[in-house]
Amino acid sequence: MSGDPGLSHDAFLGGRLHIFQPIKGYRAGVDPVLLAAATPARPGQSVLELGCGAGVASFCLVARVERLLLTGVELQAFYAELARRNALENQLEMTVVEADLRHLPASLKERHFDHVIANPPYYERHRSTASEDAGRDMALAGETHLSEWIDVATRRLKPRGYLTMIQKADRLPDMLGACDNRLGSIRVRPIQPRLGRAAELVILQARKGGRAAFALEAPLIMHEGVSHKHDGDDYTPEAVKILRGGQALPWSG
Amino acid sequence: MSGDPGLSHDAFLGGRLHIFQPIKGYRAGVDPVLLAAATPARPGQSVLELGCGAGVASFCLVARVERLLLTGVELQAFYAELARRNALENQLEMTVVEADLRHLPASLKERHFDHVIANPPYYERHRSTASEDAGRDMALAGETHLSEWIDVATRRLKPRGYLTMIQKADRLPDMLGACDNRLGSIRVRPIQPRLGRAAELVILQARKGGRAAFALEAPLIMHEGVSHKHDGDDYTPEAVKILRGGQALPWSG
Repeated sequence: MSGDPGLSHDAFLGGRLHIFQPIKGYRAGVDPVLLAAATPARPGQSVLELGCGAGVASFCLVARVERLLLTGVELQAFYAELARRNALENQLEMTVVEADLRHLPASLKERHFDHVIANPPYYERHRSTASEDAGRDMALAGETHLSEWIDVATRRLKPRGYLTMIQKADRLPDMLGACDNRLGSIRVRPIQPRLGRAAELVILQARKGGRAAFALEAPLIMHEGVSHKHDGDDYTPEAVKILRGGQALPWSG
Repeated sequence: MSGDPGLSHDAFLGGRLHIFQPIKGYRAGVDPVLLAAATPARPGQSVLELGCGAGVASFCLVARVERLLLTGVELQAFYAELARRNALENQLEMTVVEADLRHLPASLKERHFDHVIANPPYYERHRSTASEDAGRDMALAGETHLSEWIDVATRRLKPRGYLTMIQKADRLPDMLGACDNRLGSIRVRPIQPRLGRAAELVILQARKGGRAAFALEAPLIMHEGVSHKHDGDDYTPEAVKILRGGQALPWSG
């Protein structure tokens, strides 16, 4: 399979993982690595990844936290099969279910998880729709979709279980609006490309039945300096610990 | 009046303003100064401050931007009168209307402003209510109130006018939820007490009829270091520029 001309074989977590993924189409970058780093899983817990793609987030998580029971749901057969092969190649275990998350099989609907994680697709903003709706992201497909992801995730969580989700920062109002009163203790961690720059991504964490007040945490800064100065890697020490070292992204408090 | 035992006389903006305010009760601190710094007013524009208290935010704004037409609405007669006296003492002009913002007089309802600014009261969280509602701030009085502030502000804005509001960070989901599709181009600036600490305050800016995507900006860090090391002032250079120098808090882009 390493000879498949449509696939690349990419190192994650400083070489601890090697992941096959398509050269064209969705390719995992730092986002699923950050998602895994922000997931407060403990050894032996159960984790459901919605839209797992080639499995990078779940595999990064189990590389840090041992004995996790991993389940992934993936709509596209091609990616579901890639996730299974990546599990095998990395000697990890993950149950990958090929399904539309809106129509999960009964076997999954009967189960509840300590953690649900997701890196939902980043929809392109439809300018025409946005302008009709006074600049808020009301692109209906996207809007409905994101709230469905959060609804399905909430249903699949155990009481006191954690939802952890990474998404473009401009979708934060939609994400918060989709968290109904089944979820609480919501925390948001902005991910800034550099010091002083607006966040490009946000990681949202919520707890089923949580009662703590909303918290907006300090940003994680990905790159050194205020602009790109030289070729190659200019990650901050904090980003390197996560991306290469496989460490957790700590939440405050 | 400086001899009034119930009042203090406090310097703001490095002594450019001197404000009488009650020793007990609501006292202006850095919050209205930050609110003024974040308001993108240009010379000669009109500004309505909802809940102006002793007038600190409006006076800080006109100390930076000349020829503003200032109007303040204040529910409590005591504070409204203080705002008028503070205007006189600082040789500034401000029309202060004693009114409930939910029942503005016709003279104000006929007017539209380039800017509406507000530093709404920080309601105490009602633990019992919060727990019933799974940790989200559903304290009805507060919730309704904040959305009323935003609704009244929106009505009083000219097309393309700016709402700028400062509030506790844990109310961000409520604030965003209260911004309906009359408002867009929403930006949020977190105010962190120190590097690496969660935001205590947020400044939200929205534009009437704005079309730009939501943006989560880089935080303003108020104090140096990761903890309080010595007595006295440990403001960051960025905070000093605003609090003592009266400079604007720039928005990106």
